[in-house]
Amino acid sequence: MKILSNRGQAMPPSPIRKLAPFADQAKERGLHVYHLNIGQPDIKTPETFLQSIKNFNQPVLAYGPSAGLPSLRKKLAEYYNRFDINVTYENILVTTGGSEAIIFAMMAICDPGDEIIVPEPFYTNYNGFAVEAGVKIVPITSKIEDDFQLPPIESIAEKITDRTRGILICNPNNPTGYVYSRQELENLREIVLKHDLFLLSDEVYREFVYDGLTHTSILQLEGIEDRTIMMDSVSKRYSACGARIGMIVSKNQEVIEACLRFGQARLCPPTIEQIGTEAGIDTPQEYLDEVIAEYNERRNVMVNMLRQMPGVVAPMPKGAFYLVVKLPVDDADKFAQWLLTDFNVDNETVMIAPANGFYSTPGLGKDEVRIAYVLNVDDIKKSMNILARGLQAYPGRTI
Amino acid sequence: MKILSNRGQAMPPSPIRKLAPFADQAKERGLHVYHLNIGQPDIKTPETFLQSIKNFNQPVLAYGPSAGLPSLRKKLAEYYNRFDINVTYENILVTTGGSEAIIFAMMAICDPGDEIIVPEPFYTNYNGFAVEAGVKIVPITSKIEDDFQLPPIESIAEKITDRTRGILICNPNNPTGYVYSRQELENLREIVLKHDLFLLSDEVYREFVYDGLTHTSILQLEGIEDRTIMMDSVSKRYSACGARIGMIVSKNQEVIEACLRFGQARLCPPTIEQIGTEAGIDTPQEYLDEVIAEYNERRNVMVNMLRQMPGVVAPMPKGAFYLVVKLPVDDADKFAQWLLTDFNVDNETVMIAPANGFYSTPGLGKDEVRIAYVLNVDDIKKSMNILARGLQAYPGRTI
Ligand SMILES: Cc1ncc(COP(=O)(O)O)c(C=O)c1O
Ligand SMILES: Cc1ncc(COP(=O)(O)O)c(C=O)c1O
Repeated sequence: MKILSNRGQAMPPSPIRKLAPFADQAKERGLHVYHLNIGQPDIKTPETFLQSIKNFNQPVLAYGPSAGLPSLRKKLAEYYNRFDINVTYENILVTTGGSEAIIFAMMAICDPGDEIIVPEPFYTNYNGFAVEAGVKIVPITSKIEDDFQLPPIESIAEKITDRTRGILICNPNNPTGYVYSRQELENLREIVLKHDLFLLSDEVYREFVYDGLTHTSILQLEGIEDRTIMMDSVSKRYSACGARIGMIVSKNQEVIEACLRFGQARLCPPTIEQIGTEAGIDTPQEYLDEVIAEYNERRNVMVNMLRQMPGVVAPMPKGAFYLVVKLPVDDADKFAQWLLTDFNVDNETVMIAPANGFYSTPGLGKDEVRIAYVLNVDDIKKSMNILARGLQAYPGRTI
Repeated sequence: MKILSNRGQAMPPSPIRKLAPFADQAKERGLHVYHLNIGQPDIKTPETFLQSIKNFNQPVLAYGPSAGLPSLRKKLAEYYNRFDINVTYENILVTTGGSEAIIFAMMAICDPGDEIIVPEPFYTNYNGFAVEAGVKIVPITSKIEDDFQLPPIESIAEKITDRTRGILICNPNNPTGYVYSRQELENLREIVLKHDLFLLSDEVYREFVYDGLTHTSILQLEGIEDRTIMMDSVSKRYSACGARIGMIVSKNQEVIEACLRFGQARLCPPTIEQIGTEAGIDTPQEYLDEVIAEYNERRNVMVNMLRQMPGVVAPMPKGAFYLVVKLPVDDADKFAQWLLTDFNVDNETVMIAPANGFYSTPGLGKDEVRIAYVLNVDDIKKSMNILARGLQAYPGRTI
């Protein structure tokens, strides 16, 4: 019997999943587990979104156009225009989640064997999409001691080969929470111009920036409009992860056409959630203001408590709802597992994601973890207390 | 500026789309166009399905498990058991449409450059998935004069190389409406055993068989349980094409695990439609009985009228809701276009799909078209009259 393809076997297991069996066992033993390991927000989906789904009353749940419903694409153009992103609906394709937007973009610009440069640590599913598309991810390391800013432009230039097709950033960043400055984006602009590359930006957390910071999209960069491809999603923005609606936005119509051909093969994104998204865009601004204020506070509480723990290095994230912290432990993988298997405070414990899985370079991130602040402030306080006690009790602690 | 990837450029335009601009122009000129070119049923989605979506009242539209909701997977296992398909929920993954099931299966068994043998004419989007996955489709020709039955097994054996990983059939077939007999499936069983291949079957039309025929699934074949992969969908069964819910079913757990890893990268299929599907499975059997009786009648009316047109060859389809017919014309592509640009009967015309796009071998299908019977009997009668008149008036007619 022939075995699976290499591709079928090569898909890396997700670092946020590999501890799941231990969490399940912990729950079976009666423990309460605070999930700081995943990006599933607890925020309510806006009423406008859910109500429009309930109002669906077409007799046939039919295929929509492969590019997405025209009314939604137009509404999305208006949405981006609000942020000084000068696009029309023709520059926008609706995809099945931001996930599909990323793989379509990769496939449109890369053939098997081509390379994309990505700052690490990065969203681990980029690895999965790269395996599917036969693309090689070439990491450039951003460092916790630099708050995970963009690595020096020379270190990027060094990695460019004749197979390099693009640079992919995630802005705001999952897992680090870093938000790239306009200057950093201008530097990327220079390098993609000089080396004839595409610049891809995963902006699914684009509205989640704190301390009054303004997010800059790559679509606002001048002179590289034909090289920029932005990927977006409603999953986080409207806390509608199960909707599976994302988008790909580019002023390069050749890119849009190529992605549309991929889109035609899969027929269309889900119809009902497109209707929900269209209504969701009309959600009063207060909804997002409140959500952002809430995350801002969660972040502040979490970072303050982390910084009080001896030996913990916690850069202040500027966006998204994650941060990567350095812990005084021998091995973050073992520590995260130990929290689930050997530790609890009053029958409660926490689940965090070891950061090594977010790095592509072997050996990096061994004493780092990603923590998501997707729980309410009370639960964050409780879980930070558990984490602090865990760090004191863990046999492999280094201080 | 670097151009797109080969993959980004190689995606073939769909044959059912290339005439779309002419149809749009015809409509702008005030014509009514009967759409016999697409597989969008006009049948109502079952109330149970739509009602359960309206009843969704979770506050957060959250990610579901990557494999699909467990309750849905269990319900699906019960559904298949009704058809003597002996599977458990662990053999079933929920996918984003049957489309995703097909590409996951291709990627799980093929690396770029590997080959899959497919009887032609075939569902054109297999070409798109193959380009995406870097897989080469090797066609074996099934012929209209044989009613599109499986080509002789020796002609399949001839095509097997050391890159061949599987044989993919569509049963009931789109575009031909052919339903493979148990004997044909047994023949395929022998050849995949002998040559160590996977057998893939796209059964999205599995319930659409006529004249009281029973559909045989590849999952019912004995002794090759570790080689069979079935792809399914709710798009046609519950007239819920916009739901984007499909499934991949296999007793080979390695295949299921590999597909699940692809599934984890894209997080999950749409949550609300999974709930809809779960309810949809409880739709009273009368719903499908009526739908099938309706298609059965449409088919009879259409085939009878086609057979009365001089020079038309119309094999009786046994399933799905399409048929491929041979027309007495110089070029079916030109004829289909001419119907939209130069012809009408009382301001009405028909849109049909030239069949050459469903063949992989160049030059085949030049005088064939695919016709879908997705309109009600009255409209089918009207559109068959228009087609008959068109065949008489077309300058490129061959009789
Ligand atoms: C950085 C990043 N990109 C893309 C996605 C995919 O989101 P979705 O497919 O739900 O839109 C996620 C989800 O967590 C993410 O964190
Ligand atoms: C033969 C065949 N397979 C697969 C599909 C894909 O269906 P879906 O992705 O809507 O489940 C179709 C749709 O027309 C089809 O005809």
